[in-house]
Amino acid sequence: MSNRVILSVDAMGGDFGPRVTLPACTSVLKKHPALEILLVGEADLLNKQLGRMRLSDDIKARLTIVASGDSVQMDDKPSAAIRHRQDSSMAVAVKMVAEGSAAACVSAGNTGALMAFGRQHLKMQPGIDRPAIIASVPTMQGHCYMLDLGANVDCSEEHLLQFAIMGSVMFEALEGVPARIGLLNIGEEAIKGNEQVRLAHELIRQQKGLNYIGFIEGNDVFAGKADVIVCDGFVGNIALKSSEGLAKLISRKVRRSFTRNLYRRLLAFLAYPVLRELQEQMDPSRRNGATLLGLQGIVMKSHGGANKNCFAYALEQAIIEVEQNVPSKISERLASYLTSKDQ
Amino acid sequence: MSNRVILSVDAMGGDFGPRVTLPACTSVLKKHPALEILLVGEADLLNKQLGRMRLSDDIKARLTIVASGDSVQMDDKPSAAIRHRQDSSMAVAVKMVAEGSAAACVSAGNTGALMAFGRQHLKMQPGIDRPAIIASVPTMQGHCYMLDLGANVDCSEEHLLQFAIMGSVMFEALEGVPARIGLLNIGEEAIKGNEQVRLAHELIRQQKGLNYIGFIEGNDVFAGKADVIVCDGFVGNIALKSSEGLAKLISRKVRRSFTRNLYRRLLAFLAYPVLRELQEQMDPSRRNGATLLGLQGIVMKSHGGANKNCFAYALEQAIIEVEQNVPSKISERLASYLTSKDQ
Repeated sequence: MSNRVILSVDAMGGDFGPRVTLPACTSVLKKHPALEILLVGEADLLNKQLGRMRLSDDIKARLTIVASGDSVQMDDKPSAAIRHRQDSSMAVAVKMVAEGSAAACVSAGNTGALMAFGRQHLKMQPGIDRPAIIASVPTMQGHCYMLDLGANVDCSEEHLLQFAIMGSVMFEALEGVPARIGLLNIGEEAIKGNEQVRLAHELIRQQKGLNYIGFIEGNDVFAGKADVIVCDGFVGNIALKSSEGLAKLISRKVRRSFTRNLYRRLLAFLAYPVLRELQEQMDPSRRNGATLLGLQGIVMKSHGGANKNCFAYALEQAIIEVEQNVPSKISERLASYLTSKDQ
Repeated sequence: MSNRVILSVDAMGGDFGPRVTLPACTSVLKKHPALEILLVGEADLLNKQLGRMRLSDDIKARLTIVASGDSVQMDDKPSAAIRHRQDSSMAVAVKMVAEGSAAACVSAGNTGALMAFGRQHLKMQPGIDRPAIIASVPTMQGHCYMLDLGANVDCSEEHLLQFAIMGSVMFEALEGVPARIGLLNIGEEAIKGNEQVRLAHELIRQQKGLNYIGFIEGNDVFAGKADVIVCDGFVGNIALKSSEGLAKLISRKVRRSFTRNLYRRLLAFLAYPVLRELQEQMDPSRRNGATLLGLQGIVMKSHGGANKNCFAYALEQAIIEVEQNVPSKISERLASYLTSKDQ
């Protein structure tokens, strides 16, 4: 990055709070000399923890603590968060984007509350009804993007079309080539699937400017057949989490298999670099950072259980989206679609 | 198995037809001396292929060829199969169960057509509206069962309750202990999820005689938190197939990683037994054989792409369900539920 970028970070969010968010922030600050971070959270606690970290003056100069009140809890309902947590680290971090003091915010906190604050303070893009959660998943060739991953249950076909448009623009902005859009379904033939996907199929097919390649089955998600996979948030969340669950199971079975006896332990020792490389490549949660797409601003959601490296990855993703100016590219494209619709 | 069991097998179904089904049948016949198989398909072709296999007289005596007409194609719609394929190997195999000449049938053909023939010839159990596809998936401790895996899209809460009851009975029949039932959802709190699962949650919770443990998230599917996981067929199909896709991707990455250079090839050679064992344990499609539950008879669906061992596994599963008498156990339990409902 060349120009100055300011991120607001919910320092209290996630399973580990400042223990993870602070070291992640300082490591990303070291890497990006033009980055500044507004660290939102309990000022005393953050000051104390930062004090222990022996930071250079340069890092200290680019790290500002912003005091906030009670944190959002993981079991807070979105409506309760809106009513009672407006001075939480999460809400304040989002508001800083709305006010223009930060270019993007990053939080590992409660997803529902983050969406609610995003809608309240940043507003939706014109033409988009609801935010969608988009994230990348690994494929044989690299990765693809999938949305929605749980922000919306009971989507209409219009919502799925909006996801297709937003996903397409985001992919093109980040990867520099047009996206092949696939619609997640249980069979490749148009007769299969439920009412929702059949209607969405027709709608997306008719939308000009989209490179729509039709239905994608579950087994093709990780095969790289599409660049952007569109689905209802209920289905997307379960598909991704099931796969993460299986990856975790495989990883445990590998560990158990390689520790059963002395010979196998020796093998594991010899094969450690390979096994580690594989684990890193394959964990779907390693590429951490899901974007709340459709808002007039950049909000990045980190896994709640993210460790330092994972949270740092989410920060880096936010920087890339700031540099690529994703929300304004989406709004431009939406404006052109809306115009062509009216004609 | 001690008593005589007769299976009808759709010899023409699946991606490979008799090339896979015949060797699978003969290998299972060798293992089970009390098994008989009615092999349904093109008589000339089957006779020719069996002739090449040099079978013992004992095996020949327990293998009967039943001639059929045109096969069901993978892209036949269920309605077209019902109209035009009544003398297909699949339809004939199902009818033999309906007539009582076989105790169960096994097919690797078109799922929609198999369900349609099942409903037409075997009829539904009283109290069940639609068949559901149930199969086992691996967990850390062993395996659990998941249904529906694609027979039904747009399920009502009543359907999900029926799945819970059927799955519970099947698990108890096969595993000998009561099943912990989980409902697949995107969050553990009752406020999350779509309309369908919220309504089903209430209904299943109130059903006496079920050991319902509440919502299960995607990442818990393979964690063994529940013994039977209930979901809509659209969601279940996508969750399972996505996970299979990820398992395949991991397996390819492992192969690529272990063949990159000579040292790694040597490691792979040394670790071959471990890697092979892992691959066998982890492939969700290896435990082949999905039951069409809710019919008055046993219909086992094999993966279309099953190889000999996988198809043999599906045959073995059918034998177990015959021995455990799963459909009549389900109908008994349903009768007791229906009675308690009326009181």
